[in-house]
Amino acid sequence: MSDALIVGVVSASDRASGGVYKDEGIPALKAWLTQAVRSPALVFEERLIPDERAVIEAALVELVDARGCHLVLTTGGTGPAPRDVTPEATLAVADKLLPGFGEQMRAVSLKYVPTAILSRQVAVIRKQALIINLPGQPKAIKETLDGVFAAVPYCIDLIGGPYIETDETLVRAFRPKSAQRPKPA
Amino acid sequence: MSDALIVGVVSASDRASGGVYKDEGIPALKAWLTQAVRSPALVFEERLIPDERAVIEAALVELVDARGCHLVLTTGGTGPAPRDVTPEATLAVADKLLPGFGEQMRAVSLKYVPTAILSRQVAVIRKQALIINLPGQPKAIKETLDGVFAAVPYCIDLIGGPYIETDETLVRAFRPKSAQRPKPA
Amino acid sequence: MSDALIVGVVSASDRASGGVYKDEGIPALKAWLTQAVRSPALVFEERLIPDERAVIEAALVELVDARGCHLVLTTGGTGPAPRDVTPEATLAVADKLLPGFGEQMRAVSLKYVPTAILSRQVAVIRKQALIINLPGQPKAIKETLDGVFAAVPYCIDLIGGPYIETDETLVRAFRPKSAQRPKPA
Repeated sequence: MSDALIVGVVSASDRASGGVYKDEGIPALKAWLTQAVRSPALVFEERLIPDERAVIEAALVELVDARGCHLVLTTGGTGPAPRDVTPEATLAVADKLLPGFGEQMRAVSLKYVPTAILSRQVAVIRKQALIINLPGQPKAIKETLDGVFAAVPYCIDLIGGPYIETDETLVRAFRPKSAQRPKPA
Repeated sequence: MSDALIVGVVSASDRASGGVYKDEGIPALKAWLTQAVRSPALVFEERLIPDERAVIEAALVELVDARGCHLVLTTGGTGPAPRDVTPEATLAVADKLLPGFGEQMRAVSLKYVPTAILSRQVAVIRKQALIINLPGQPKAIKETLDGVFAAVPYCIDLIGGPYIETDETLVRAFRPKSAQRPKPA
Repeated sequence: MSDALIVGVVSASDRASGGVYKDEGIPALKAWLTQAVRSPALVFEERLIPDERAVIEAALVELVDARGCHLVLTTGGTGPAPRDVTPEATLAVADKLLPGFGEQMRAVSLKYVPTAILSRQVAVIRKQALIINLPGQPKAIKETLDGVFAAVPYCIDLIGGPYIETDETLVRAFRPKSAQRPKPA
């Protein structure tokens, strides 16, 4: 498992973490990744937490610094409401911002709903990890990952993580020719 | 009037506020909103001020904190020139950034002029208010509001303001089904 | 030469500045500008430097403050890798941000490669100069400049620089009518 892809999946939701309803975000993230990633093996670290900025920040830091995640996907908490603080927590732990993810996620969602512009999702690098905020709804999670994941494997390469191969019928990882490895026969 | 929508309309312009020429920004904002919003009643708070960052900040704070505005629309001061400081003033009073508005406003304007990328418009949340920077020209104000206002009513819902209904022949407010109220017969 | 356009062209690359391979960024920037700009005369200030944030910042400051550049184009160092720090250096010396350039450069590149969203390019104003980060590859430099340069001459007008005329078969400078000068016969 030393070459596994370690993925943090974080759902920020007062109600789901308080047991008011069942979290649908983490299962949606895991289902999408399990289908789309052919190799390496996936190891998930799950965190279901309330919409508290300090708690979200602590979870992101622990997942990256202590658990060694290469990729962290969050769901929830990216709207305009007062309790929506996931982007602020994510920016607070960032080494580098990747504005293109937020732009493209909103552009993708805008094909479905005009309120996509209310989404405040960001993506950042912290140490060896790419952290991406995703929407809260399973349908929107799928639409968004379908729209941006092609760029994730090469990003993980560039920050020193394992070489990801995808199920190309679902999403085709894009790399410049110089960064491509021969496909297994 | 307790359920009115209180709207701040702010024109930042050295020349218009100094009487060198007539302000066209505030009338354009009011005309667009008066046509597009069917309910609730609109109460306007108008401010015609110079392109001074401290003055713009003070106006935004007063409109939101003292006047109770739910929505503040600014016009002018968003270009690259040295006196254009409206985005900086807006960011300085923000609780939350909404990057999707700026992205979409520029994408809309880009259909008309390639110099749309010079526009530095932002939108933010401060307390119970959504603040949006708009361009200075009446034609560009209309194009931009046509392009983004569909997302405004649901945003105002989420930050605790009154339920806005629009003239759907001009702009159709979008809300998820769970947030829609039955239309009056 | 007092009315020349003074252009800083900066390549941030550990390997090119260390002599490991030949820099292709500066020649690509100069070739594009020499073809596209008909007037005024171009004066280039070239800087080939390592991917060190402090060095890049110092180069940008010197080019704008001491050399009087009206336009500074950087190439390289805008990806997610740890040594990619050109956007951070650019933001650190900025008076104003112009988010539309980054958005549009990524949108243009996205037509060619899905990994365009990994590009972290920014554009800013410092004093009398427009500074734009461009990609590292000559092909991507050309695609990006083709996609955004139409807005550059009017931006330079607005910050007090010389009036740029372009070869309209390559790129058509856009200005509002009130800012256009009669073409030379």
